[in-house]
Amino acid sequence: MRAVVKASPEPGLDWLEVPEPCPGPDEILVRVRYAAICGTDLHILEWDPWSRSQLQLPRIVGHEFSGEVQALGKGVTDLRVGDRICAETHIPCGRCVQCLTGDQHLCFNTRLFGIHMDGAFATYAVLPPVCAWKLADDIPDEVGAIMEPMGVAVHGLLVEEVAGRSVAIFGAGPIGLAAAAIARACGAGPVFVVEPVPERRSIALEMGATRVLDPVDAVEAILECTRGVGADIVLELTGNPRAYGHAFEVLRKGGRISLIGVAGGPVTLDINSALVFKGARCYGISGRRMFETWNTMTALLQTGALNPSTLISHRLPLEDFREGFRLAGEGRGGKVLLVP
Amino acid sequence: MRAVVKASPEPGLDWLEVPEPCPGPDEILVRVRYAAICGTDLHILEWDPWSRSQLQLPRIVGHEFSGEVQALGKGVTDLRVGDRICAETHIPCGRCVQCLTGDQHLCFNTRLFGIHMDGAFATYAVLPPVCAWKLADDIPDEVGAIMEPMGVAVHGLLVEEVAGRSVAIFGAGPIGLAAAAIARACGAGPVFVVEPVPERRSIALEMGATRVLDPVDAVEAILECTRGVGADIVLELTGNPRAYGHAFEVLRKGGRISLIGVAGGPVTLDINSALVFKGARCYGISGRRMFETWNTMTALLQTGALNPSTLISHRLPLEDFREGFRLAGEGRGGKVLLVP
Amino acid sequence: MRAVVKASPEPGLDWLEVPEPCPGPDEILVRVRYAAICGTDLHILEWDPWSRSQLQLPRIVGHEFSGEVQALGKGVTDLRVGDRICAETHIPCGRCVQCLTGDQHLCFNTRLFGIHMDGAFATYAVLPPVCAWKLADDIPDEVGAIMEPMGVAVHGLLVEEVAGRSVAIFGAGPIGLAAAAIARACGAGPVFVVEPVPERRSIALEMGATRVLDPVDAVEAILECTRGVGADIVLELTGNPRAYGHAFEVLRKGGRISLIGVAGGPVTLDINSALVFKGARCYGISGRRMFETWNTMTALLQTGALNPSTLISHRLPLEDFREGFRLAGEGRGGKVLLVP
Amino acid sequence: MRAVVKASPEPGLDWLEVPEPCPGPDEILVRVRYAAICGTDLHILEWDPWSRSQLQLPRIVGHEFSGEVQALGKGVTDLRVGDRICAETHIPCGRCVQCLTGDQHLCFNTRLFGIHMDGAFATYAVLPPVCAWKLADDIPDEVGAIMEPMGVAVHGLLVEEVAGRSVAIFGAGPIGLAAAAIARACGAGPVFVVEPVPERRSIALEMGATRVLDPVDAVEAILECTRGVGADIVLELTGNPRAYGHAFEVLRKGGRISLIGVAGGPVTLDINSALVFKGARCYGISGRRMFETWNTMTALLQTGALNPSTLISHRLPLEDFREGFRLAGEGRGGKVLLVP
Repeated sequence: MRAVVKASPEPGLDWLEVPEPCPGPDEILVRVRYAAICGTDLHILEWDPWSRSQLQLPRIVGHEFSGEVQALGKGVTDLRVGDRICAETHIPCGRCVQCLTGDQHLCFNTRLFGIHMDGAFATYAVLPPVCAWKLADDIPDEVGAIMEPMGVAVHGLLVEEVAGRSVAIFGAGPIGLAAAAIARACGAGPVFVVEPVPERRSIALEMGATRVLDPVDAVEAILECTRGVGADIVLELTGNPRAYGHAFEVLRKGGRISLIGVAGGPVTLDINSALVFKGARCYGISGRRMFETWNTMTALLQTGALNPSTLISHRLPLEDFREGFRLAGEGRGGKVLLVP
Repeated sequence: MRAVVKASPEPGLDWLEVPEPCPGPDEILVRVRYAAICGTDLHILEWDPWSRSQLQLPRIVGHEFSGEVQALGKGVTDLRVGDRICAETHIPCGRCVQCLTGDQHLCFNTRLFGIHMDGAFATYAVLPPVCAWKLADDIPDEVGAIMEPMGVAVHGLLVEEVAGRSVAIFGAGPIGLAAAAIARACGAGPVFVVEPVPERRSIALEMGATRVLDPVDAVEAILECTRGVGADIVLELTGNPRAYGHAFEVLRKGGRISLIGVAGGPVTLDINSALVFKGARCYGISGRRMFETWNTMTALLQTGALNPSTLISHRLPLEDFREGFRLAGEGRGGKVLLVP
Repeated sequence: MRAVVKASPEPGLDWLEVPEPCPGPDEILVRVRYAAICGTDLHILEWDPWSRSQLQLPRIVGHEFSGEVQALGKGVTDLRVGDRICAETHIPCGRCVQCLTGDQHLCFNTRLFGIHMDGAFATYAVLPPVCAWKLADDIPDEVGAIMEPMGVAVHGLLVEEVAGRSVAIFGAGPIGLAAAAIARACGAGPVFVVEPVPERRSIALEMGATRVLDPVDAVEAILECTRGVGADIVLELTGNPRAYGHAFEVLRKGGRISLIGVAGGPVTLDINSALVFKGARCYGISGRRMFETWNTMTALLQTGALNPSTLISHRLPLEDFREGFRLAGEGRGGKVLLVP
Repeated sequence: MRAVVKASPEPGLDWLEVPEPCPGPDEILVRVRYAAICGTDLHILEWDPWSRSQLQLPRIVGHEFSGEVQALGKGVTDLRVGDRICAETHIPCGRCVQCLTGDQHLCFNTRLFGIHMDGAFATYAVLPPVCAWKLADDIPDEVGAIMEPMGVAVHGLLVEEVAGRSVAIFGAGPIGLAAAAIARACGAGPVFVVEPVPERRSIALEMGATRVLDPVDAVEAILECTRGVGADIVLELTGNPRAYGHAFEVLRKGGRISLIGVAGGPVTLDINSALVFKGARCYGISGRRMFETWNTMTALLQTGALNPSTLISHRLPLEDFREGFRLAGEGRGGKVLLVP
C-alpha cells in the first residue's frame, strides 16, 4: 500500500510504497476511510525538536481518522469485522496509578498512535482495540475522522458545567472553533472568540461565537461586555506565551481556565493576580477522557446539537497530502481531510 | 388595594380590599407586574392538611411574580426605586448550618413568601431584599414571573452535567415542560417526557422533547430506545407513588435521579434494584440554589437558548383569579399568569 | 486440592477434593493465603432465592482473599509469579457504557468471582488479572484478605468529603465497623454507630466510634447530640426495612446518605421528608470503585491511619469452615478468616 | 484605649492612645482576648508597595483575633452580648456575582478587616456581624485567634479529597505547619514538608509531617519516595518564584496543586510540563470559604483530630508588639500571640 512516511531525519514527508500491516494477536486491522491533519503532524513535517525526541524512523504518520475493521487478532473479542470506528490516540498501559484511577488519558506510560507506532495516513492501519471507538450508525465517516480533535474541545470545556456561563476562547484553530460550537450547544452564555486571522473569525461566527475579537482589542472588549467581571470560563488554545496574560486577565474571580494549547516557550505570569487572589481554577488539558469524552461527543452529534460540517474546510486524496499540509499550515481554515 | 386572600379556614379564596402594605426598615415595597399560579396555590385553595399546618389567616397568597421596586426601607442599600425584580420564595435565616455553608435554599428556619408572610396576588407586595433578584434588561416582566418555577427545573437538571446525557422526565406540568426545554438548551441527548395528558405531551414536543410517552408505555419504550441501558438522568415530577418505580426502573446503572415532585403519600421501593445495585445517585430537590440557579437561568434566557414563551398558556386580570385557578387546576396547559 | 464447594441445590456446603485449577491464557493462578467469610457466603450456605438465581453448581465459593501468584496465562504481562495480591470481586466486561466511562464497578455484564466462577475457599484460585490488586509490601496477607469488604466502607464513606462531618452508621457488622474506623481516620466529626448487638457496639468503640447506640434510642440521641440538626453523613448497612426511616430521620437537611446494606424486602419511605424537602443526596453503593477505592485504602493502611487488626476476630483452618460460618452467622464479632 | 497603629506613611508601627470605638447600627463591639501576627502585618510594618496601595492612615492594624461580644448595633439580631467569637477577615458586599453564587470569599468588592478598616491589635474592635464566627464552647480563645490562618490551610487542602493522597507542602510557616497537621488528621498518605529553616522543619515533624526536607533535596527525595510518580497533592506556600518550578515538578500527572503563597514577583513556568501534559488541576487559594471552612475546622478541633497547640510558639502582652513582630519576622517559630 501507499503511505505518508517520515522516512529520514530532516524536514519533509515521503509518499512511499510500504507493506500492508498485519495485526498482532491483540490488535485490529482497519481500512482507513478519512484521515485528518493535526497541528502535531505539521511539527513532524518540520522535524522540530519535539518530533526528533519522539519518533523512531521510518514512521507512517497521521492519527486522526475513521475507518472500517478489516481483520481481528486472535485475542480480540469485543469488535467485529465491518465495525465502523474512529480512534483514541492515547494508548494507555492499564497498570499505572493514573490508569487504575480513571485517568487513562494521563497514563504514565502513554504511547501515541501515529507517533510511537505507525499511524493512519495510509490505506490500512493497525491499532490496539482499547483505542477503537465504535462510530454510531448516524455519524458519518467524515465526522468520525475529526472526533479526536473535537474531543479535546469537549474535554476542556466540560471539565466543569458550561450551561449559563460566559466563555472566552483564545485561538480559533479547529479545536477553538469546535469549542465555540460546543459551548453554544451546551447552553453557554456569551461566547467570545479571540483570533487574529479574519478568515477564522468568520468561521467562528458561523459556528456560534457570539462575538469575535482581534487579540488587540480582546481584553478590553470582554471586560466591557461582562461589566468588568470577566468571563466565567476561559480556554487558552494558542500556546502563544503572550496570550496567557490576556487569558488570565479576562477570567473572572472564582472562574476557571483550561490550558489546552501547547506553549511555544516559557510563560511568565503574575501568579497573584492571575490565580491566587482570583481564587481561580486552572486545568491542564491533554487528550480526551477515556471514554466519557467520546460518549458525550457522540450524543452531541447524534442530537444535532453539534453540527461539525462547517469545521471541515478541505477534502483531498491522500496522495495530495503535500497540498493538504500546505493548507493546514496556512492557518486560515478548519480541518483538512485526506482520503486514501 | 385589592388582593386574593385566604381569609377563612375552609376551601376557597376571597377577593378583598386590604390596606396597602408598608415596608419595614429591612424590606422593600414592590408594584406587582405579573404573578403566576403555582401548584402550591391550588393546595391552599383546597385547604389541604399541609396548608392548614402552614398558613395563619388571613393571608394574601401568591409567590411567583415580577414587579418594580416602589419604596425601600431605611436599611436597604443594594436596590433602588425603579429596579425591576422577581423573587426567590425561600427566605433564609442566614445563621443556621445550611445558610452558613452555601445551602441557604435548605435553611433550617426557612420562611416562605406568600405562605408564612403575605404574598403577591395583589397590587403591591412587601419582601426582604435578600429575596429580590434583579431582572436583566432584556428579560420581559412576563418571563420574570415564571423564573421561580423554571428555576426548580434548572436546579434539578443541572445538579450534575447534562451535556450529552439522555434524560427522562416524568410529568409535564410547567416544571417538567421547562425541564424539557432546558435539557435541550444544555446539550442533552434524547429527552423523553412521560405524561398522561395529551395536551401537555403536545406542549412538551413543542418545547423540545425528543419523544413523548404515555406512562403506560414509558418504561418499555425508554429501555428500548436506550438499548436496554436506561436514561442517564431521570427527573420525577409527578409525586405519584406509583410513578417512582417506573422512574427508577428506567434509570441506568450509575445514573442519577432528581426527585422534585411532592409525593402524594408513602412510596414503596425495591431499594436494592432502584439504588443499591444500580450505584445510582438520588437528589432531593427543593427550591433553587441561591443564587447560582437564578444566575444560570438568566444567561439561558438572555442568549435565547431557553425560550419560555410556549410555557405561558394563559394571561388573565388578577380579579379573574377564580378562572385562572380553574385553568391551572385542569392540568392541561402551561403557566397561568395573573395581571394586577 | 480440598475446597469448600456448593455441590447440591440445598442448604449446606461441602468439603471436597477437587482438581487443581489451571489458568487460561488470560488468567492467573493464585495460592490462597487467607480467605474471609462474607455475608454473601452465608446466603449461599442457606441457599436463599438470590443464591439459587445466581449459582451454577458445583461451585467453589469464597471471594474475599489474599494470596501469591503461582502461574500466569500466556497473555498476562503485567503480573509476575510471586506477586502478593488480593482481589476485586467484580469482573467487568470492559465494553459497556459504565465500563467505558469510569464505572467498571457497575458494569452492565458484571460477573462475580466466587459466585459466577469458582472462588477462593480452596488451596488455589484462578482469576482474570484485571481483578488482581498488588498488595503493598507493608500490608500483611491477613489484612489483604479483608480489603475487599473494607473497600465497601471506603467507597460509601468517601463518595464525598468526610473531614469535619458528623457521621451516623447504622449497623456494626464488619463493614460498619470498618466505616467507623475509616471515618475517624479521615477527620470525621462525631461518629455515631447504631447497633443492637452489645458485643459489636463494644468493638465499634474500640475502632473509634464516638458514641454507640442501641437502635431504640438512636434517633433521639443523634438529634440531641447534633442540636436537632442531624448528621452530615449517614451510612445504612443493615438492610432492615424499618431502619431506613431512622436513617433518613437523622440525616440533616443538605446531608448525604449512602445505602450499602442489601434490603431484606421492599422499603416504604416518606419521600418528601426523607429526601425532597431535605435536599438530600442519596448514593446507592455497590462494590468498590476500580481502583480508586483500593488505592485510597492502601494509603490509609500504610500510614497506619487505619488499623484493621481489631476487625479480625477469628482465624481458623479452612477445613474448619463450618465453625467459621457458625461464628460469622452469629453476628457478634468481626471478620472470620479461613487459612488453607 | 491603647492600640497598635499605622500612623505615618513610613516603616514602623506606633503604640497610641485612641478612642474606644463605637459600633454602628449594623456592627458589633468586641473585647479582644487574643490577637495573632500575620505575614500581612509584617508587610504593613515595612510599608511595602502593597501596603501603601491599600491602607488609609491612621489605621489600627491586626486581623487575626478572638474576643467577646461587648455591645451590638441596633440592627444586629443574630448575636448576643457575651458571645465568644473569632473573625473572618474578608468582608463581602453580598451583591456581586461571586457573593450571589457561593463565593463570598472572592467578593468583587471585598474589604479587609484590619486593612481597609480598623483592626484588632487593641483593647476593642468593631466589625460587621457577617464576619463573626461563634466559637464553640470547647475551643479556647487562644485557638480561636489562629483559626483564620489555619482556615487558609483547610481551604487549600480540602478543595478536593485528601484521604489516602500523598501531600507535598512547600513552606513551613504557620499555614504550612497547620496544613501538615490537617493533612494527617484527614487521612493523608505520606506528608512531605519542604522548608529551609531547621527549626521549622522540627515543628513540622512534631505536627505530623512524615518527612521534612530542605528545598535543595526536595524534588529528588519526593520523586524517589513516590517511585517517580510524584505527589497527589501539592501546596505552594512560599511565594518564592523559584519554588514554583519545584512544586509543579513533584506534582503527579492528574494531581492537583493549591497556590496559597503570595508570589514575590513574576513566575516563569514551563506550562506544558507543569500543567498541560500533566492534566493537572491548579487552584488559586485566597481566604477561607465562608463558612464551610470554619465549620470543618471547628469539627477538626472539637474531635481533637487537629491539635494546634504546637503551632503557637509565643504569647506576649500587646504592648510588647515590637518584640512580637521581631519574633514573627525571624521566621523560625509558629504563631505569635498578642494579649491586650
